[in-house]
Amino acid sequence: MRKRIAILGSTGSIGTQALEVISNFPESFEVEVLTAGNNADLLIQQGMRFAPNVVVIGNEEHYGKVKDALSHYPTKVYCGDQAIAQVVAFDTVDMVLTAMVGFSGLRPTLEAIRAGKDIALANKETLVVAGKLIMEEAIRHRVQIIPVDSEHSAIFQSLVGERRNEIEKLILTASGGPFRGKGLDYLEKVTPEEALCHPNWCMGPKITIDSATLMNKGLEVIEARWLFGVAPDQIEVVVHPQSIIHSLVQFVDGSIKAQMGLPDMRLPIQYAFSFPDRFKSGFERFSFTDYPELNFEQPDTKIFRNLALSYEVLKRGGNWPCILNAANEVAVEAFLEKKIGFLGIPDVIENTLGKSSFVKAPELEDYFESDLQARRVAKEQI
Amino acid sequence: MRKRIAILGSTGSIGTQALEVISNFPESFEVEVLTAGNNADLLIQQGMRFAPNVVVIGNEEHYGKVKDALSHYPTKVYCGDQAIAQVVAFDTVDMVLTAMVGFSGLRPTLEAIRAGKDIALANKETLVVAGKLIMEEAIRHRVQIIPVDSEHSAIFQSLVGERRNEIEKLILTASGGPFRGKGLDYLEKVTPEEALCHPNWCMGPKITIDSATLMNKGLEVIEARWLFGVAPDQIEVVVHPQSIIHSLVQFVDGSIKAQMGLPDMRLPIQYAFSFPDRFKSGFERFSFTDYPELNFEQPDTKIFRNLALSYEVLKRGGNWPCILNAANEVAVEAFLEKKIGFLGIPDVIENTLGKSSFVKAPELEDYFESDLQARRVAKEQI
Repeated sequence: MRKRIAILGSTGSIGTQALEVISNFPESFEVEVLTAGNNADLLIQQGMRFAPNVVVIGNEEHYGKVKDALSHYPTKVYCGDQAIAQVVAFDTVDMVLTAMVGFSGLRPTLEAIRAGKDIALANKETLVVAGKLIMEEAIRHRVQIIPVDSEHSAIFQSLVGERRNEIEKLILTASGGPFRGKGLDYLEKVTPEEALCHPNWCMGPKITIDSATLMNKGLEVIEARWLFGVAPDQIEVVVHPQSIIHSLVQFVDGSIKAQMGLPDMRLPIQYAFSFPDRFKSGFERFSFTDYPELNFEQPDTKIFRNLALSYEVLKRGGNWPCILNAANEVAVEAFLEKKIGFLGIPDVIENTLGKSSFVKAPELEDYFESDLQARRVAKEQI
Repeated sequence: MRKRIAILGSTGSIGTQALEVISNFPESFEVEVLTAGNNADLLIQQGMRFAPNVVVIGNEEHYGKVKDALSHYPTKVYCGDQAIAQVVAFDTVDMVLTAMVGFSGLRPTLEAIRAGKDIALANKETLVVAGKLIMEEAIRHRVQIIPVDSEHSAIFQSLVGERRNEIEKLILTASGGPFRGKGLDYLEKVTPEEALCHPNWCMGPKITIDSATLMNKGLEVIEARWLFGVAPDQIEVVVHPQSIIHSLVQFVDGSIKAQMGLPDMRLPIQYAFSFPDRFKSGFERFSFTDYPELNFEQPDTKIFRNLALSYEVLKRGGNWPCILNAANEVAVEAFLEKKIGFLGIPDVIENTLGKSSFVKAPELEDYFESDLQARRVAKEQI
């Protein structure tokens, strides 16, 4: 039987690559639901090509356009965030790929889990904000969360057949981004255009900026903490400019396992869909002939402060990661709009944390409130 | 219940390290049988310290000495190869570590398998010579063969939880030995003393010379072919001077998994004993801080011809790997005795193959005959 997949965020980088993967295995995968925030044109094209049961356009302004364009197709068209959170629970959905950007992933991911759907998790902010709650719900509803982030997929793959309580340490690799090795003088003046040039990975703008500031790695540390149930001090980050080793697990006996390959997001996407099987792919293969040298160095958290901030909020816990995430989303947007400089991003986050109230054991609604409040405070810093 | 272990070859490099591992986990492991070929003194010491049920000294000349020394201990003392092949079948043995050198491992390993004992395989020659037969017997008797060689342990660990039919390629790493990058002019003159200085691993003399000639890697290719059921062209060798990545598996989706760590044979020995668990060890941990760079290059099979010869005999099959192994054992001994030069080793092997008769589908006794004959022919070349 084919696995029927709902893709939340189908017009983004992960979403479009997921559709490519699905179209490579028409006998195994089927598109059931597609959702997009604003990109109505691409959503319409995808709706025509993949004939899903439902498409949802988040921005209600585009509803008429999508509805009209697909009027002669069997696909149902809905709009709004509420609809996105509802369609993931449809009986006809087997797995939900959460590939939307930022905090907006939290509600639909939670709804999907509560409806018992397995999750291919590409929206790391969901776990950053509410990791404890999400993992508890996943256990309660016997849902599998399979990470799509290349680092977490690497760890997940390295842990297949192993016992979680035999993990000693997780080592997340970081490319170091386009500004690896640069000093504060240099970073002070970098433009969004420069920050958007990632050396190895082709991704959306938010995550590309997060890679340049190492915030992406900080968010991944928090994500890993919840996904794999380890303590913050069991997670290390090592800079590996070639992005070939995607991450590593060290076990209690001292043995280390790693997953490697060319940087290609289609691989972890396909793995999340095919797990526990692996499907034969036509992706270009890694060869040591092309990579005679692999390099590793320690991240400089004095210069890339976002990574240090991420560890701090993770250790403090409560609503602190939620506030870090919200402040970061606001700061990245302001940087892209050239309202603040590159080094202003950690300043905004730190100031926002300083002006927020700490909630030790937040409930779901506390996260929404903390998120809103943090965005307001962060905007005041800009 | 404690796992009762028989160590064949307890006085060698692997054997002594295995005893160290066992003594670290007295509540999990127990020494049941120890055997040695010639080193009576160390076998006596080990017998006193570990109080096994039985010790066997291979060389019958030393029987009286061992018997006398252990006369006030509860340990039974036997001698001769026949006894070694018998004690592995004792009811009180749960697992047999085959750590003797060379062809002599074949008979007792086979007896252990036929008695239903799980095997921790350190004697790669057993699989080189009679891989097909051994693996068939292991399946028939539902015996697990867990490799102890660091490369094969790496592959075994990378395959835990994975499906064997989803393997695309195995990549064995090779340190390249002490003569990596050297030309024929240089190699012509190297002495046994130089060849015995391995850059990363501390091992016995036979395997150290095999590492210097890359024969060790050739034997490992043959071992891997049988252990993991892949075709010869699914096995690659890459030179990796630091010996940190112990080997890799590429799967059909393009994903690669690797096992890594400092070069320390105690780890794969412990893993073979503790599998499927991992026990907390005090071994020094790997850190990227100490290894900021990992290097990889292609092996030069024009200079290190033993590796090319190994692929050839593996592809031809039958008794050819058995002959290669026998000729190599003779040639290595002659090199250590300074009767032939370093480059004479592949010559002896090639000439021996040229003068041997090919048996396409050998039975067990054919291997013993091929081995004897090949040794005779090889000695004529020296």
